Amino acid sequence: MSSNLYDAAYQLERAIRQSQEFTALKTSFAELNADPGAKNMFENFRQVQMSIQQKQMMGQDISQEEIQQAQKTVALVQQNHKISKLMEAEQRMSMIVGELNKIILKPLDEMYGPADQM
Amino acid sequence: MSSNLYDAAYQLERAIRQSQEFTALKTSFAELNADPGAKNMFENFRQVQMSIQQKQMMGQDISQEEIQQAQKTVALVQQNHKISKLMEAEQRMSMIVGELNKIILKPLDEMYGPADQM
Ligand SMILES: [Ca+2]
Ligand SMILES: [Ca+2]
Repeated sequence: MSSNLYDAAYQLERAIRQSQEFTALKTSFAELNADPGAKNMFENFRQVQMSIQQKQMMGQDISQEEIQQAQKTVALVQQNHKISKLMEAEQRMSMIVGELNKIILKPLDEMYGPADQM
Repeated sequence: MSSNLYDAAYQLERAIRQSQEFTALKTSFAELNADPGAKNMFENFRQVQMSIQQKQMMGQDISQEEIQQAQKTVALVQQNHKISKLMEAEQRMSMIVGELNKIILKPLDEMYGPADQM
């Protein structure tokens, strides 16, 4: 890989690190991690989410009990300000990463083309 | 999103577009597309691959017939120079995109940490 590519990638890495959105994400993350109760609630919520997603991907059935458990964890995290703040910051960051990827991968998208993918 | 982020992303996009690896990929792609027989063979190979991957992901069984068909298409594409050249160029490009992503996403990797993912 040429140094041109490395230099440009590291420049973008610095821009992300210094961005308002990343700084906000880091702050929200630190605030949640400083609150063990909220942190635990959030990790539990993520685990329940992942377990359901995995089952859906594998085509497995999701039990009524699992649906109820998921709804309960969603209701809990929605009431916690630190968690909702972190989730919003994560969503913004994820949108930015998506936009950056769209820009960066434009040469490849143009080459393969939308209608004539190989 | 700040103009800093946009500028850095577009700079990386230009570096990719001008890279030796992307130029080689574009050439291989054009050469294959100019050869309808090889292009058709390659598209068939990709379809067989994708169909098997989808079944594996869904936990479905893959028939003996499908395995044989896949082996036949692999043997065919391996003998075609234009196809193997394109596949090598695609692999190199995909490695580069992976390396670039690793650099760009370092701030996020550091924040979440390898051992303490949320
Ligand atoms: Ca095509
Ligand atoms: Ca954690």
